[in-house]
Amino acid sequence: MNLPTDPAENLASLIRCPSVTPAEGGALAALAAMLEPMGFAVDRPVFSEEGTPDIENLYARLSGNGPHLMFAGHTDVVPVGDADAWTHPPFAADIRNGEMIGRGAVDMKGGIACFVAALARHLADGTRPRGSVSLLITGDEEGPAINGTTKLLDWAAARGETWDAAIVGEPTNPDAIGDMIKIGRRGSLSGEVTVHGRQGHVAYPHLADNPVRGLLSLVDALLEPSFDGGTKDFQPTNLEITSIDVGNPAVNVIPARAKATFNIRFNDSWEAETIQAEIHNRLDTAAGRRKYRKGRTDRIDFDLVWRDRPSHVFLTRDERLVETLSASVAAVTGRTPALSTSGGTSDARFIKDFCPVVEFGLVGKTMHMVDERVALSDLETLTRIYQRFLQDWFG
Amino acid sequence: MNLPTDPAENLASLIRCPSVTPAEGGALAALAAMLEPMGFAVDRPVFSEEGTPDIENLYARLSGNGPHLMFAGHTDVVPVGDADAWTHPPFAADIRNGEMIGRGAVDMKGGIACFVAALARHLADGTRPRGSVSLLITGDEEGPAINGTTKLLDWAAARGETWDAAIVGEPTNPDAIGDMIKIGRRGSLSGEVTVHGRQGHVAYPHLADNPVRGLLSLVDALLEPSFDGGTKDFQPTNLEITSIDVGNPAVNVIPARAKATFNIRFNDSWEAETIQAEIHNRLDTAAGRRKYRKGRTDRIDFDLVWRDRPSHVFLTRDERLVETLSASVAAVTGRTPALSTSGGTSDARFIKDFCPVVEFGLVGKTMHMVDERVALSDLETLTRIYQRFLQDWFG
Ligand SMILES: [Zn+2]
Ligand SMILES: [Zn+2]
Repeated sequence: MNLPTDPAENLASLIRCPSVTPAEGGALAALAAMLEPMGFAVDRPVFSEEGTPDIENLYARLSGNGPHLMFAGHTDVVPVGDADAWTHPPFAADIRNGEMIGRGAVDMKGGIACFVAALARHLADGTRPRGSVSLLITGDEEGPAINGTTKLLDWAAARGETWDAAIVGEPTNPDAIGDMIKIGRRGSLSGEVTVHGRQGHVAYPHLADNPVRGLLSLVDALLEPSFDGGTKDFQPTNLEITSIDVGNPAVNVIPARAKATFNIRFNDSWEAETIQAEIHNRLDTAAGRRKYRKGRTDRIDFDLVWRDRPSHVFLTRDERLVETLSASVAAVTGRTPALSTSGGTSDARFIKDFCPVVEFGLVGKTMHMVDERVALSDLETLTRIYQRFLQDWFG
Repeated sequence: MNLPTDPAENLASLIRCPSVTPAEGGALAALAAMLEPMGFAVDRPVFSEEGTPDIENLYARLSGNGPHLMFAGHTDVVPVGDADAWTHPPFAADIRNGEMIGRGAVDMKGGIACFVAALARHLADGTRPRGSVSLLITGDEEGPAINGTTKLLDWAAARGETWDAAIVGEPTNPDAIGDMIKIGRRGSLSGEVTVHGRQGHVAYPHLADNPVRGLLSLVDALLEPSFDGGTKDFQPTNLEITSIDVGNPAVNVIPARAKATFNIRFNDSWEAETIQAEIHNRLDTAAGRRKYRKGRTDRIDFDLVWRDRPSHVFLTRDERLVETLSASVAAVTGRTPALSTSGGTSDARFIKDFCPVVEFGLVGKTMHMVDERVALSDLETLTRIYQRFLQDWFG
């Protein structure tokens, strides 16, 4: 039996499938072709929702007696960007100076390729894992993420699937393999504040109410004071104003409306609900206070709309999962990985509702960039780490 | 001889010419037809500039021995707006309840109609004015004002014309005729501040530099402290932020650039140059101070672009002009008009470089609105005020 033990070969097969979200591009089929010879039962559910493209997904399970480990990830990739700027074609998997170049090399076809290779080596020992392994792979992580991991989890759970632990194979290492395991993520919330004023001529400001002044008063209250100083496991909560838009082209006109959009990344001193309440409270107080008053004493007339669903903050407290993975990293690389909760959100925020989850994969430096690439030696290192983890976690 | 002594008849002729900027619409021709029988020499210069529509203008002069009085104004009108909302057609000059309805009724075909009627009555006395009277009328006041009053003044001056005083017939009265003569105007300046940051992901703010934070720091310095408390003749200087635009649609992205546009109306404690220097100084200081620091200590990277030409502040100090007009208003209405410098800019800002200028006309309440209209009694009152002024100023 020719098992997929070579992570570079696995990765080349996956990169050559142009699976830019929402296209499957052959990537899930290529993955299925690696898993089926190892005895995995592979399902390829397609999820739909009005107004979004249909998305192909994959759920593969190898059953055994014992605990159930999930490996989660995505085969879709972000667009190539400036195609002419790539030194090698983005879907060719060319190798140069010991690095494989291609879109998805580290985010995260590379992680999948290594996990598959680790499984193949684990099985090649002749030992079946003392438990079950499943791969939960979506084609909609880089896109709207509506027909992806959330629906796949619900679909599998509805079929009676339960898991004891999960690893997400996203690139978690800032500089070198072994740097960092992610054991949680901050929550994320986005909102839009609109201030309603009264249009008028700039020469007669007392007849108008410039909503920009009101908006600046509210935004000031969002930016200061800081929300917290961070916690034992998390960075400080941070709010960024991502856009302010008035769209008034006439310099002699005071506009009628002004809008600010913001995103907040919050740590475990908050829940989505408590940080929302804090934002409401800051805005309400600021609306009555009017920092930029210009003689006005009435409340600022504003509304606040939350955008999308909040991502909830989470921290994985499964010591065996975290310690087994840390020890595997240390055994292979000789380094002790930081246990971090920094960075953006990931599909781990959905998985954490089903089982303890950690994230560990390749080095993220080139993700989403032109000439995304991975060192072949990194592929080998990550494969050994995953293999060691399979042995120890099931062992 | 059938002289145009009835202001309502004059106004009806002018309203029936649909002279929405830049169209002449027959309005200047109608005016010429009123002036020529009174002995005026009428010129109709057309001015052009690349990228702007050609504009027709009118300069009419009745020469006599003595000082030279200019009456200035415009026959162009703003668009009708919501045509269906008018209760009478906007170019019909219908009369209802003693009011004539039509676009331009008060801004400012009505002022022209009254001045022509006043002249006709003055001449009907059999007396020629002891001096010269000219009408300087443009078709480009409500538009870009490029091929209008400025070029017409230069054109006339190049032909050797000089003036001793000017009245601009714009609607200056807030509520009733006799309320207000304008004897000066604040200056006006517009600018655009752009802050250059570094784009990035909201989850990694330390790798980015959110330009919104920088822009808010700069805008704060523009808004506070106030520039002055006003002067004897002028309101306080006032700055309005007219737009802020970032245009970032992605809530998880820190944008690269943020822009604010502002307009400042400044009084006679400033020149255009000194207020510009003050703005520069405030921005430079704020750029080094960073009100919203977020751990940054480098200067805010910004640029400032001034838009259009500044309008300079001016105050008319010709006591005879101001007092004769005030006395005429008082004699006809029994009220003492306020001498004001409030409100927006007008073509008086160009005329003031050639001779002392004041502004007095109808009641502005309905200008630029649907159902713009003027009371027939107001037309008669303003005609008498202008007539009294002609007698006394030349007398
Ligand atoms: Zn990814
Ligand atoms: Zn006007």
